[in-house]
Amino acid sequence: MIEKLIDDILKKKNPSVVGLDPTPEMMPEFLKTKYFDRMGYDNPAAYAGMFLEFNRAVIDAVADIVPAVKPQIAMYERFGITGLQAYNATCEYAHGRGLTVIGDIKRGDISSTAAAYAAHLGGVDVNGTHSDMWTEDAVTVNPYLGTDGIKPFIDECSAHCKGIFVLVRTSNPSSAEIQEQSLADGRRLYEAVADLTEKWGSGLIGQHGYSEVGAVVGATHREQGEQLRERMPHTFFLVPGYGAQGGTADDVAGFFDENGLGAVISSSRGITAAYKKDPKYDEKDFALAAAESAVRMREDLMGALMRRGVSY
Amino acid sequence: MIEKLIDDILKKKNPSVVGLDPTPEMMPEFLKTKYFDRMGYDNPAAYAGMFLEFNRAVIDAVADIVPAVKPQIAMYERFGITGLQAYNATCEYAHGRGLTVIGDIKRGDISSTAAAYAAHLGGVDVNGTHSDMWTEDAVTVNPYLGTDGIKPFIDECSAHCKGIFVLVRTSNPSSAEIQEQSLADGRRLYEAVADLTEKWGSGLIGQHGYSEVGAVVGATHREQGEQLRERMPHTFFLVPGYGAQGGTADDVAGFFDENGLGAVISSSRGITAAYKKDPKYDEKDFALAAAESAVRMREDLMGALMRRGVSY
Repeated sequence: MIEKLIDDILKKKNPSVVGLDPTPEMMPEFLKTKYFDRMGYDNPAAYAGMFLEFNRAVIDAVADIVPAVKPQIAMYERFGITGLQAYNATCEYAHGRGLTVIGDIKRGDISSTAAAYAAHLGGVDVNGTHSDMWTEDAVTVNPYLGTDGIKPFIDECSAHCKGIFVLVRTSNPSSAEIQEQSLADGRRLYEAVADLTEKWGSGLIGQHGYSEVGAVVGATHREQGEQLRERMPHTFFLVPGYGAQGGTADDVAGFFDENGLGAVISSSRGITAAYKKDPKYDEKDFALAAAESAVRMREDLMGALMRRGVSY
Repeated sequence: MIEKLIDDILKKKNPSVVGLDPTPEMMPEFLKTKYFDRMGYDNPAAYAGMFLEFNRAVIDAVADIVPAVKPQIAMYERFGITGLQAYNATCEYAHGRGLTVIGDIKRGDISSTAAAYAAHLGGVDVNGTHSDMWTEDAVTVNPYLGTDGIKPFIDECSAHCKGIFVLVRTSNPSSAEIQEQSLADGRRLYEAVADLTEKWGSGLIGQHGYSEVGAVVGATHREQGEQLRERMPHTFFLVPGYGAQGGTADDVAGFFDENGLGAVISSSRGITAAYKKDPKYDEKDFALAAAESAVRMREDLMGALMRRGVSY
């Protein structure tokens, strides 16, 4: 995962990822009319069909601009089985457009169960037959259960050139309650998780110096992100919290290394709901608005990197 | 959730829950033949059909013995969309037999996303239309993101009489790496999570003195479980790790209060794969073996409680 992601960041001169987190409220009226009038508000297939049509248009619009997309599985799981079919179809469509797909699934469990979740990366092998039920290139994982809950994912990363991003320091307001707990050894808890994460990736470091084991570090924690960049030299960051959650390009500029690598910045509503924020767009132009917003985000990030003397 | 669970524990004189965590290896040969010969090893629907037939037979066999079942969603998610259909059908079948269904989903995310996952408990409401895509009575949740990641679940518990069990101290070997970190204030991290959990449940305490916000506490941590029982007087425990993972009835006896309440002990393979461990069973008797194993587990737990002077 990590080699292709970095290659595409360099090729597209863009270290950003579009979050595909559809909600009914985000959908243009013409799509709501099309699906709900025909299928009904109580029909999960209406949501799934609408989300997929929306996502495909956004993916087509941003495929040449960004290296990766990040569908948030909760937004699909919310609508049950058919919602998850739309998640899978979204992942597959994004693959078809050459994008790296980071599934934001935040799974985590004890070892035998984590091995089952790791099917998101490695598929299943039963009686000599291999099947892929999920097709993400990388997924986010939760570290609360420790090494034996992470190792099954790492094994699949190693076997199938996939990746994970471990939740280290999340962007949400309450995250400090657990993640910033001061430890007796002087570290904060998130620093202990950071140290484990750097260690977990030590066997999977690629040609650019980064491993298949990345970290989620929120854009809302500017200083901590900069310190973590030093602390985790082989760990690539997936950075939520830019835009709608308040993080700016200058906030995240220090999350990158001296080559402008080491991080991808994620934006969801800021891209996919851009059409709602500017009256110049007709709602039918939601994909165009997404593309233009993705270009503005690239320029915003490139500008912040250039102010630190970095360019691709 | 919690009132019915406690009522049924008292009625069935059994504080245990059967984990429904099917794997291909666990299935009797006659079921494998039936599904794989007809549908093929690469057909997810074969796994889903096989798991559901297995689960239904186990549910029928234990429905009068145990108050609850705990399907582990990872074992179904592993087989993709059709696997998750078997998860849903298992939940619904268990409801039909009057059992409380604890979905072991270990979800956790930032607030808006946690609200999407909370559809497992509260369904979705769009344009005045309510739909239930999932039907668990309670789910397990991960605390690493703090209060704003838990509150959407608590809101649904409150609105729909559902429950959650927060991961406090998990049963797996590596869990100590994070959960036993010593904090500067003298607590261990899991104790800080325990204190948050007790607080999160303070508004949802029922007639028996326990709240809809429970805690996962592994049977493999005997002393910690006993201390947590004191520390979290209104928090019901969901206790994995009995049996296959090494926890004994005497290990968990101190997880109960003086009335023999305050905990349900979970066993998965020990019940559902019991037919494999005793040559007296033909594989066609897997459900009978599960029922007899569930009765032995009840007697084992009741014996340990009686040795502490507690009986229902």
